[in-house]
Amino acid sequence: MAASAPVDADAAILAPFTSDAASWKGRHVVSVQQFDSAESLALPIAIARECGEAVEATGGTELLKGKVLANVFYEPSTRTSCSFAAAMVRMGGGVVPVTGSTSSVAKGETLSDTIRTMACYCDAVVLRHPATGAALEAAAASPVPVLNAGDGTGEHPTQALLDLFTIVSERKADSPDGLTVTMLGDLKHGRTVHSLARLLSLFKVRLNFVAPPGLEMPAYVTDAVTAAGVEVAQSAGLCDELLAATDVLYVTRVQKERFATPEAAAAAKGSYTVDSAVMDKLRPSAVVMHPLPRVDEIAKEVDSDPRAAYFRQMRYGLFMRMALLRLLLLGA
Amino acid sequence: MAASAPVDADAAILAPFTSDAASWKGRHVVSVQQFDSAESLALPIAIARECGEAVEATGGTELLKGKVLANVFYEPSTRTSCSFAAAMVRMGGGVVPVTGSTSSVAKGETLSDTIRTMACYCDAVVLRHPATGAALEAAAASPVPVLNAGDGTGEHPTQALLDLFTIVSERKADSPDGLTVTMLGDLKHGRTVHSLARLLSLFKVRLNFVAPPGLEMPAYVTDAVTAAGVEVAQSAGLCDELLAATDVLYVTRVQKERFATPEAAAAAKGSYTVDSAVMDKLRPSAVVMHPLPRVDEIAKEVDSDPRAAYFRQMRYGLFMRMALLRLLLLGA
Amino acid sequence: MAASAPVDADAAILAPFTSDAASWKGRHVVSVQQFDSAESLALPIAIARECGEAVEATGGTELLKGKVLANVFYEPSTRTSCSFAAAMVRMGGGVVPVTGSTSSVAKGETLSDTIRTMACYCDAVVLRHPATGAALEAAAASPVPVLNAGDGTGEHPTQALLDLFTIVSERKADSPDGLTVTMLGDLKHGRTVHSLARLLSLFKVRLNFVAPPGLEMPAYVTDAVTAAGVEVAQSAGLCDELLAATDVLYVTRVQKERFATPEAAAAAKGSYTVDSAVMDKLRPSAVVMHPLPRVDEIAKEVDSDPRAAYFRQMRYGLFMRMALLRLLLLGA
Repeated sequence: MAASAPVDADAAILAPFTSDAASWKGRHVVSVQQFDSAESLALPIAIARECGEAVEATGGTELLKGKVLANVFYEPSTRTSCSFAAAMVRMGGGVVPVTGSTSSVAKGETLSDTIRTMACYCDAVVLRHPATGAALEAAAASPVPVLNAGDGTGEHPTQALLDLFTIVSERKADSPDGLTVTMLGDLKHGRTVHSLARLLSLFKVRLNFVAPPGLEMPAYVTDAVTAAGVEVAQSAGLCDELLAATDVLYVTRVQKERFATPEAAAAAKGSYTVDSAVMDKLRPSAVVMHPLPRVDEIAKEVDSDPRAAYFRQMRYGLFMRMALLRLLLLGA
Repeated sequence: MAASAPVDADAAILAPFTSDAASWKGRHVVSVQQFDSAESLALPIAIARECGEAVEATGGTELLKGKVLANVFYEPSTRTSCSFAAAMVRMGGGVVPVTGSTSSVAKGETLSDTIRTMACYCDAVVLRHPATGAALEAAAASPVPVLNAGDGTGEHPTQALLDLFTIVSERKADSPDGLTVTMLGDLKHGRTVHSLARLLSLFKVRLNFVAPPGLEMPAYVTDAVTAAGVEVAQSAGLCDELLAATDVLYVTRVQKERFATPEAAAAAKGSYTVDSAVMDKLRPSAVVMHPLPRVDEIAKEVDSDPRAAYFRQMRYGLFMRMALLRLLLLGA
Repeated sequence: MAASAPVDADAAILAPFTSDAASWKGRHVVSVQQFDSAESLALPIAIARECGEAVEATGGTELLKGKVLANVFYEPSTRTSCSFAAAMVRMGGGVVPVTGSTSSVAKGETLSDTIRTMACYCDAVVLRHPATGAALEAAAASPVPVLNAGDGTGEHPTQALLDLFTIVSERKADSPDGLTVTMLGDLKHGRTVHSLARLLSLFKVRLNFVAPPGLEMPAYVTDAVTAAGVEVAQSAGLCDELLAATDVLYVTRVQKERFATPEAAAAAKGSYTVDSAVMDKLRPSAVVMHPLPRVDEIAKEVDSDPRAAYFRQMRYGLFMRMALLRLLLLGA
């Protein structure tokens, strides 16, 4: 965290969003903690839906005409950088890409100075950075909105928001109330599932955490979710009963190198892979998600199943990022 | 080729284009084979001419406003990536650049998944890839048009189309009918001349292939062109008679390392270089082309000759790429 | 300098700008030498002010709609490339980024050929290049305006123009007439201060050059400035009297490795650093500038002082680059 940012400045940055669009204008999206109620999530979901309708109808809007976004990536992330860039362009704005290799960091400049400079040229900054806490430091220095696009093992709040938007869109609902969400894979290291679990705990959901031994969901997430009143079940593998009860199956990568031994990795492989046999046991209304890129956690044969939502998930991400840019830049 | 793409899907992708603009909408440009008649080439040539007139008059059009192009380059190519980017921008659209180094490939993602993701954000994908067949694989995975911007030693169809457009534009004609085209240099390794020769064989042209020993045009190209009824002459060097009969001189690079020995390279050098002495023997109406970058195949002194068309060729390329984007995205 | 560019062509490129906007259309900005009168500087300053008002009011203009800028950077410079990109986008134009690593230079292409190719696609070229004289060579080859964004230790004229614009804007004046400008730090190697000193010598200013022994302002700059009638004082360190007389304090980096010995570097450190104690001795109306990135020449505590203008300086740079693009592309 920035030594120069007083604690109360950080608190102001991290204050919860409300359902009043005007109050979003000029703020930063740094942490999933800024979303602490179902009401504060209803707004970006509604705006993302509007953005999606505009894209499907005409390709986009002109709402951000004349605005410029700095897309600052200190580490590569095709998916996220392209998603934000396309979101900006589809609203009539322009994008200035900044990558680590072209940055002034090589000349010893601090992150704060780099961000403050970008804010002289641009109306908003998307930041991806390898260091935990970088987004908060950047937000403290920036006179224009900063959107955290992943900072180390810390946060990736827009991913959690797009995951939530995917769930409600696929289920044609306004909220995930009443759904059973099963998270599968390496739940220990997955920033994505940590943030999503916390967002979902604001709703009336049931959560199943299915992970190989040693890669379980961290206690601090499980505790927080349970404290919020959510019913949680944990297990070491998928079973028919669990699949039959699942509305949303959220699959994540299990990297071989995370296992204690190659034998453990090999043994685990089949248990955390989604193929036709798994799909056969899921409900007709189920939704299969994955943050991508996938390696072999989901078999190619599943792609043509209408319940496979992981590519549509990318598109919902475009719409959610359009919504966030619009709210932070226009407050409307 | 994509294991997952059935043969009939590939056949549909590679089906010939027609002169009906509406039938172009949503299709892919993967191979020069998709152009199998003079009629199917007349359409992009006519549209490219329109695009050129719009650029010269006002800088461009707004026809692709709200559309976004993913410019996906797994290997660098300034000329081609800039040409496509400028083409998109000059029609009011936006561009999202994706380079190999920022791609998810490093995380083990397949080309199909990367392209399918880009197609969630963008309305068309330009792909440059080092592997032969990559464009067909990408097209099979993509719900939006894929334009092959070079895949290994395979295809580079938009280069062939811009070369054809350059020839007819420079000759102020609607087709290359009646022209003698002389191709000079390393004809064995030049993807450019292979594709152009095949396109030209759809017209009433005469072709001269002039190459150093060992670097001749491959038999499969010569055979195809001859089978199409084109008169072909091959030789190991330029001569006065040949230059006097040439309407279009298409020069390509001869890389030193292609020769068997340094002596062979040195001996060949003068014979495959275009300078003032060569220009003196060409007709006043002749056109000199080169796909660029050149090293020393064309002397700097030739640049100011009005017949030197190789920089104008770049500009015709901009217009042809505008035409292709317009046809694939709008069908009009 | 380009062997192929005749001396009189270079002279035409380097001819002074006038206050007639129409005469700027299609020209190149290569050197600060092209600005040889207060009158020729009044025009870009006035236009930059207009651009700034448009950005503050509505985010920008649409004056360069349909125009495309090639942002060609053979060496990285986040600040400058982003500034030009944002300037173009804020006037409705598009930007095609070209970096050294994606360039055709690797294939042996000359700078002239690369620039001439870019000029086929784009309406203007911004060039950053490590070789002194590269911008003049590029301008000689280019049919569209070239803007020098730094060529080796040669020139960086747009930086000098934005520095001048910062001074007059911060002082709410039309010219720097009557001001005392103190330049501090490594004045030997700083391209920025050399160019700015020459521009300022066109006005009625007083200059103080404060540099560590061995890093003084080069004699050719001091001589030129003195010959222009400017009163110059040189010293090896800041003193109270000097600070009290200063209207503009222009701080530059002093790189440790420039000193003869680590001891000399350590000894010099405090003397060329601006902190609260230094600020206390400056006038209330003083302006503190720095070309950025800074390392520790200016203490972080100074950032919140209203006289700290170095981030506003970046924003003035955006406006000045908008003005230059507008003048060179539209002549108005």
